[in-house]
Amino acid sequence: MVELRIILVGCGVVNLALLKIFLKHRERLIARFGLNPQVVAVADSKGVVVNEEGIDIAKVIKIKKNNRSVIEFNELGKIHHDVIKAIESVDAEVVIEAIPSNINDGEPSVTYIKSAFKHGKHAITTNKGSLALFMSPLLELARYNDVMFKFSGAVGGGTPMIDFAKKCLVGDDIISIRGILNGTTNYILTQMQKGIRFDRALQNAKRRGYVEVDPSIDIDGLDAACKLVILANVAMGKKVTLAQVKIRGIREVHEELIKEAGARGSTIRLVATARDDLRVAPEEICVNDPIAVDGVLNAVTFTSRYAGDQTIIGRGAGGTETASAILRDLLDIRAGMQILGGGE
Amino acid sequence: MVELRIILVGCGVVNLALLKIFLKHRERLIARFGLNPQVVAVADSKGVVVNEEGIDIAKVIKIKKNNRSVIEFNELGKIHHDVIKAIESVDAEVVIEAIPSNINDGEPSVTYIKSAFKHGKHAITTNKGSLALFMSPLLELARYNDVMFKFSGAVGGGTPMIDFAKKCLVGDDIISIRGILNGTTNYILTQMQKGIRFDRALQNAKRRGYVEVDPSIDIDGLDAACKLVILANVAMGKKVTLAQVKIRGIREVHEELIKEAGARGSTIRLVATARDDLRVAPEEICVNDPIAVDGVLNAVTFTSRYAGDQTIIGRGAGGTETASAILRDLLDIRAGMQILGGGE
Repeated sequence: MVELRIILVGCGVVNLALLKIFLKHRERLIARFGLNPQVVAVADSKGVVVNEEGIDIAKVIKIKKNNRSVIEFNELGKIHHDVIKAIESVDAEVVIEAIPSNINDGEPSVTYIKSAFKHGKHAITTNKGSLALFMSPLLELARYNDVMFKFSGAVGGGTPMIDFAKKCLVGDDIISIRGILNGTTNYILTQMQKGIRFDRALQNAKRRGYVEVDPSIDIDGLDAACKLVILANVAMGKKVTLAQVKIRGIREVHEELIKEAGARGSTIRLVATARDDLRVAPEEICVNDPIAVDGVLNAVTFTSRYAGDQTIIGRGAGGTETASAILRDLLDIRAGMQILGGGE
Repeated sequence: MVELRIILVGCGVVNLALLKIFLKHRERLIARFGLNPQVVAVADSKGVVVNEEGIDIAKVIKIKKNNRSVIEFNELGKIHHDVIKAIESVDAEVVIEAIPSNINDGEPSVTYIKSAFKHGKHAITTNKGSLALFMSPLLELARYNDVMFKFSGAVGGGTPMIDFAKKCLVGDDIISIRGILNGTTNYILTQMQKGIRFDRALQNAKRRGYVEVDPSIDIDGLDAACKLVILANVAMGKKVTLAQVKIRGIREVHEELIKEAGARGSTIRLVATARDDLRVAPEEICVNDPIAVDGVLNAVTFTSRYAGDQTIIGRGAGGTETASAILRDLLDIRAGMQILGGGE
């Protein structure tokens, strides 16, 4: 049983959920999938701890639960402050990066991913920002360095929208994408449908932890636009970036508008559409439309040449859900390494 | 470019749609996927025509459009009456079988598939009957004969429910399945929701060509049960057959019941569920439930250990749609043959 050595960058809800899966289901992962993950470095926002013998995962989970940094605990391993240097120098096959998205310049995610590639490491990211800004060059760099680059968790959380587009419609052509890609705005619009005012609905969403640190990312449609860019590139073979999306958020959606739509058997949703162009905007859609989901659900309809309309619905976020997407990527990488002949 | 030689069994709407794709998109199939399909035998209900140089597909499409049998046209190739003998003796890599399902004993589909396997041919079927009755032994026989057996089109038409379960939730465990797997009854129940009586709704469905030759297959839940068996075996690793499903159809669903459900924000649907047991029965479900689709749509929710609930919605039938599933299977087989070393 070869161990798969992992550098974990980011120690938020997603990567912690992944560590919990490693901890709780190690036997199953080994027995069923031949996957024996060994975490050799863990970085959080303060720094990175390295232990080439394998880091004590249970301890990391406990430390983060208490809102402490891994670098406060040198019993975990050697403490460094330079994450990039760790990515470059620590012996590992895969870098898993799940730090908060930055949609302005994609940093530091982009630099982390590039460092991984340049040092022959496969990378998994859940980072919408770096992908929406630099997907094509990153894929190019991965190819050039002969490593794999996976990002199933960047769209749809655990809902395998990217996998579906790549693996389930082989032989077909996806000619358009249309969906609800942001759970926060969908939650707010669903609340407003029930007569709750925008400000109050936003507060409710914040209280439930649905809103990004900068609420504008959700409300003004940027998060949905990032995900649309990623899906359009993967599913339709486009080479677009965030700058090419026409974006309008939900600030101008008034209660009156929603009430009127309701009277027509419709509802207002923030719809992301990719066909010739990419656009995110509030739209009136029929309540019978499969993408007219309620609450924090995400939904996307792929229209393909032969198979027609296919809709996938799921929770677009969540720690364990998104960690399950990383796990899929990890198994994909492992399978790819076997075909390539064992990694390195 | 190696040709993939195909024996086509059944000449109904699905296989004809497949032939149209071969005819219209050959260049694309070759260029994009390296797939060069050559149909060397075509069987319809009257007999089979064989031409090892490749049958004139355009002519077959024309003949079937005029409701004639291929065996009336000896310019197509050599005419035989014994389909099984053709499957056994004609040089080909793949048998594609899409004849009407027989849920009593699976014949003649089962015999066709077995004949293919025993003579080293891969098989693709869209046949619910043979799979719901004999999936495990057929898969076993395929393994024993070292051939591939694919059936993406048997559930969901072009909607890749089987592919989704197999390819998109790797590393996860599907712990339950719940869905609308029969478009006909869903169409009837949707009509009844609008105040149309059962008899009239059934007539409407018949007029639109939605109903099986024996309407009981749809109405009494047998079709949905067959598909549930197939999904449960593939997605949950069960080894069940049709006999193990508790089945209740929609005959006893009265308008009153639907009206009452409507008043509660619910609707009545024929729901197929697999958890510990398998069951098909009319159920009251909330209109906000993602599987509460209208008309002939199909929908299925897979609940998995990590990724939570994932719903897929699509048209569960249709010639081109189902043909796209066969095409996926064909590309899967082609990829598998390359790994095995080129087939024969």
